[in-house]
Amino acid sequence: MCSLPIPLEPLCRVAVTGGTHGNEMSGVYLARHWLRAPGELQRPSFSAVPVLANPAATAVCRRHIGRDLNRTFTNTFLTSKPTPDEPYEVTRARELNQLLGPKNSSQAFDFLLDLHNTTANMGTCFILNVTDIFAMHLCHRLQLQHSEPRPRVVVFKLSQEETFSIDSVAKHGMTIELGPQPQGVLQANLFSRMRSLVASTLDLIELFNQGTAFPAFEMEVYRFLSCTDFPHTEDGDLAGMVHPQLQDQDFEPLQPGAPIFQMFSGEDVLYEGDSTVYPVFINEAAYYEKNIAFMKTEKVTVSIPALPVLSPAPAH
Amino acid sequence: MCSLPIPLEPLCRVAVTGGTHGNEMSGVYLARHWLRAPGELQRPSFSAVPVLANPAATAVCRRHIGRDLNRTFTNTFLTSKPTPDEPYEVTRARELNQLLGPKNSSQAFDFLLDLHNTTANMGTCFILNVTDIFAMHLCHRLQLQHSEPRPRVVVFKLSQEETFSIDSVAKHGMTIELGPQPQGVLQANLFSRMRSLVASTLDLIELFNQGTAFPAFEMEVYRFLSCTDFPHTEDGDLAGMVHPQLQDQDFEPLQPGAPIFQMFSGEDVLYEGDSTVYPVFINEAAYYEKNIAFMKTEKVTVSIPALPVLSPAPAH
Repeated sequence: MCSLPIPLEPLCRVAVTGGTHGNEMSGVYLARHWLRAPGELQRPSFSAVPVLANPAATAVCRRHIGRDLNRTFTNTFLTSKPTPDEPYEVTRARELNQLLGPKNSSQAFDFLLDLHNTTANMGTCFILNVTDIFAMHLCHRLQLQHSEPRPRVVVFKLSQEETFSIDSVAKHGMTIELGPQPQGVLQANLFSRMRSLVASTLDLIELFNQGTAFPAFEMEVYRFLSCTDFPHTEDGDLAGMVHPQLQDQDFEPLQPGAPIFQMFSGEDVLYEGDSTVYPVFINEAAYYEKNIAFMKTEKVTVSIPALPVLSPAPAH
Repeated sequence: MCSLPIPLEPLCRVAVTGGTHGNEMSGVYLARHWLRAPGELQRPSFSAVPVLANPAATAVCRRHIGRDLNRTFTNTFLTSKPTPDEPYEVTRARELNQLLGPKNSSQAFDFLLDLHNTTANMGTCFILNVTDIFAMHLCHRLQLQHSEPRPRVVVFKLSQEETFSIDSVAKHGMTIELGPQPQGVLQANLFSRMRSLVASTLDLIELFNQGTAFPAFEMEVYRFLSCTDFPHTEDGDLAGMVHPQLQDQDFEPLQPGAPIFQMFSGEDVLYEGDSTVYPVFINEAAYYEKNIAFMKTEKVTVSIPALPVLSPAPAH
């Protein structure tokens, strides 16, 4: 597994995207607010660009119109020939790739921060590609600065060919995921927390640009393993639900033999794995259509090397 | 204000409706479960009929397809001539009126129990027309039987002409509203609480049918006053959100001068009323499209007369 290139120049082209899922309201309303008042996103060496990623879906307050935009930034979709009946999000992904990429090109934005909410009890969570050393440094520093509730880091081990999310269009990127918040609801405490995390992220990029040292460190992360499906009836309908003992226990250890589902008929379904895992996105509303009840992760410690120290950047 | 007629005969035609809003999952999955296994709804003197009220909206997990079904049971809609381009819910309301009504007729069902969820922190709540003396008795007894969390009763003072909700099709009826639960999420604890409340409601109807005395009582209720809109920008977008101090404070007193909104620009908006009110449905996802931030109620005590004691009903 190769790491992404470590930046050797200041990151001057930075974007903050909200509304990638149109019913995740913290990012939707932060993006709309910054589009009216972008000053909050300015730093001495760069001005981050606010983007409302899926305006059609936000207009009707749905996750998506045709397909999940945040699974559409693959080379296949981005290089496909436009057709009249393609899903809106395929067209929109190509537009965003022109605006923020092109993906894997030297013209791509330096950093993309994507803002999400979940109905699961995930607290403050950063999601990123573990090979993005620069973004891992940001997560580490954000963890130190925003200790309550303690942010968790979820990593995927993806090769560059497999990436599909909006942040993969830029050279570096990550997702901030705050929960629990119902779809279509804007809660002031999460809105403020998101706003503060974005401000800190931009401050950290500014620090890097100004030549601050980012030494090596070790970090505990939750590495994605696999998804667990809901139990179903023969005709495909739900046959049970997330067990009350598992509900809201995101990032807590799940031991073999512990209950994971409560069937409508009354009996419990137990976890049959042979090792302890750490479930995340437990009972997330958006994953019902994918049939996913929760995702399993393992807790591992990763070693992240130091970043190079840049010469101080000139004010832009 | 006239009361609805008090029943002088056993209530033998009872319906339980779920999925009137297609993304309120406790009722959706209880109705689907009971359609497969209706035995749970049987009592000696009657068998309650489960109904999935809005199957098209539940199929796509949305509140509605064309318009809010639960605002469509007015005489105007129910007696309108079908047109090819009318909203699906207008057609469906007529169908349900044929199945469960016709509204205001002697053939109408005796009792309709409608099952809802809210994203607001409403706990266990019963919503009904205060003139429905029979339903008020059920609420009173359900409060005694299900004390944790203490159920609250929200009443509307509607004349018969103004009713618009699905339960108004039957001779008597009420809504069970459980929250907080995100739209599109099925939480086991609320599912079980809803199931238990429905069972108790049917047990109470059976008790009445069997000649049990339901004496007069006094009861504290929250009576609907008016709605409070979100603050908006000049171009109609949200300019702020429910204040953190108001979030989740459903049924708690709101004093004049207390903060109700936090603007994106930072300042607080205070409650300018001249008396204490009790907000409900605070920050409910479904009310953003109606522009409603919360509803104000007043807390009042109502006196409910005894029900007549029936001769014991024969087993059906």
